[in-house]
Amino acid sequence: MRVGELSKRSGVPVPTIKYYLREGLLPAGVLTSPNQAHYDDEHLRRLRLVRALVDVGGLSIATVRGVLTAVDTRDDSLHNKLGAVQEAISQPSPVELDPLAVKDVQAFCERHGGLEGFDIAASNVTLMLAAALSAARSVGHDHFQDLLDSYLEGLKIIAKADLDYIAHRGSRDDIIEGMVVGTLIGDEVLKAVRRLAHVEVSRDLMAPPAPPKANETPGSAL
Amino acid sequence: MRVGELSKRSGVPVPTIKYYLREGLLPAGVLTSPNQAHYDDEHLRRLRLVRALVDVGGLSIATVRGVLTAVDTRDDSLHNKLGAVQEAISQPSPVELDPLAVKDVQAFCERHGGLEGFDIAASNVTLMLAAALSAARSVGHDHFQDLLDSYLEGLKIIAKADLDYIAHRGSRDDIIEGMVVGTLIGDEVLKAVRRLAHVEVSRDLMAPPAPPKANETPGSAL
Repeated sequence: MRVGELSKRSGVPVPTIKYYLREGLLPAGVLTSPNQAHYDDEHLRRLRLVRALVDVGGLSIATVRGVLTAVDTRDDSLHNKLGAVQEAISQPSPVELDPLAVKDVQAFCERHGGLEGFDIAASNVTLMLAAALSAARSVGHDHFQDLLDSYLEGLKIIAKADLDYIAHRGSRDDIIEGMVVGTLIGDEVLKAVRRLAHVEVSRDLMAPPAPPKANETPGSAL
Repeated sequence: MRVGELSKRSGVPVPTIKYYLREGLLPAGVLTSPNQAHYDDEHLRRLRLVRALVDVGGLSIATVRGVLTAVDTRDDSLHNKLGAVQEAISQPSPVELDPLAVKDVQAFCERHGGLEGFDIAASNVTLMLAAALSAARSVGHDHFQDLLDSYLEGLKIIAKADLDYIAHRGSRDDIIEGMVVGTLIGDEVLKAVRRLAHVEVSRDLMAPPAPPKANETPGSAL
């Protein structure tokens, strides 16, 4: 396809595509005449991935280049690629870390075998967790870490759905693109559904008991 | 206690306390002399709640006043108060809503009995969900809503832990304060733990198979 069709199918304007080509984020097309290049589905997939990283992820061009290098590295498992992408799209809040919060993260990772490999001080993901727990401690909530195991239990159900959502996508670029969109837009979806889950659960725990019907035990009001 | 001690115990500077008093966010203390007022634990609790709403929630003074009115309304269940606070601290992203995304939210709420009462167009929480699904659709992900039921399933486990965390706090103000901090800082904790859950789950699904040991079947690499 020509650049106009690539633009139409990806939703990315032609000048932006040309910018990505100049920056090396998109490989050059095959020249069919001195002024015309031909692009294929691989270009379309890569373009969608770049757009997800730039528009949804808000990453700088330099960071996108780093992510693409990780994606294109040979002899690396998809699991490792996803880890590299996740680090790139995760930004800890710029709060001062409370050493006790860092210890809580350390203990949490040690409790869960699959997280042993994390270098707490070097991973954006664990720094993000330490920053959030530090913020909780700074307003007097020093037991928030007690929730972490329940959070992980619920989030494993969600992570399985997330990975199932991306795993059957065809190409590596599509899988990575799904990971970026699924992680970042998924964060917003999760926030909203979490509030709905609070409503459902607090209705059971805290709403005033409805007048009892036959064969029904009224719930206890807090 | 005097205002100096109230400041020390709450971590809120005296000038800020005086500002909250002038704005009516904190009830006046009992005057013990023309220049001195006495404050009690109720003031301390209210001050912590105001600080959570302002500092953690980023709410305007006018919005905080509205939340406090909801908190102080008599003859209203804690469930309803929590709902009012949740609406105040939830802001949908300012994206154009996709009518198909709004329909997805509608269908989701109808599928789950406890969510039937939501007025989709009026609730910040459902608008937040519709905005996130619209963002997904705008980058070509028009099946994201298929994840919602799994998200709710995992988030109910998390919501139970959240409500358990706040339910045994003593006063109504403390419970509401815990809800604000738990919801907003909890969002950040959730984001980080979600990434760790992805790592745990994708290791099982996508990591290259380890050399098989005795009595062990190697996992399938994607």
